[in-house]
Amino acid sequence: MKISHIEHLGIAVKSIEEALPYYENVLGLKCYNIETVEDQKVKTAFLKVGDTKIELLEPTSPESTIAKFIENKGAGVHHVAFAIEDGVANALAEVEAAGVRLIDKAPRKGAEGLNIAFLHPKSTLGVLTELCEKPE
Amino acid sequence: MKISHIEHLGIAVKSIEEALPYYENVLGLKCYNIETVEDQKVKTAFLKVGDTKIELLEPTSPESTIAKFIENKGAGVHHVAFAIEDGVANALAEVEAAGVRLIDKAPRKGAEGLNIAFLHPKSTLGVLTELCEKPE
Repeated sequence: MKISHIEHLGIAVKSIEEALPYYENVLGLKCYNIETVEDQKVKTAFLKVGDTKIELLEPTSPESTIAKFIENKGAGVHHVAFAIEDGVANALAEVEAAGVRLIDKAPRKGAEGLNIAFLHPKSTLGVLTELCEKPE
Repeated sequence: MKISHIEHLGIAVKSIEEALPYYENVLGLKCYNIETVEDQKVKTAFLKVGDTKIELLEPTSPESTIAKFIENKGAGVHHVAFAIEDGVANALAEVEAAGVRLIDKAPRKGAEGLNIAFLHPKSTLGVLTELCEKPE
């Protein structure tokens, strides 16, 4: 698999409204998009920093995996997403052949219309890892 | 403060020797440097991905903050480091004035000879945050 860069860092927050003043006023980053991903039960806010995005993730329901993450570990970095140059489907086949446990067996649609898939943190040394690509 | 990009992601691992095959053979990244930072009681391994580095952090002593982090939270993302364009000392003054709690009141030397300082995760929404710059 060819990784070009870190596409984004997913950061779990209790409230985007409460988090944005820190990211915008203290760190000086700009939020350029807020969207809700219904099937993931999250509201997301995107900020750009270099060639990477910060994706703030706020749970919209107590059943959201983000709500459970915050309950168990507290707010903080939730996942790391790599931009894949040679296709997420190819990458999934490769990493599965290497013995990595997959959360998504095939790419699916994520925020911002990307094709995405998650690898299981038990196989990635504790780092919940997302692979993503822009659709053709 | 002006952040140009994410300088690195610090990732706590139990063993660099055990972690590198995943990063190099599965993700296809290259480790270009391994160094020990004695006063932090860590061994570090660096890999480059886009304009960001991944810094694997292995505790060299049970008293290392990395050992305690792994004990409490498990291996995984430990901190996020931003590259500061207009000086870490300036940035510290600004963020302290904004009410952010500092771990380092002044820049100190970190891995790879950078000037660095940490902000307290209680003030940064759970994300242990490092500011860094190349020395002049």
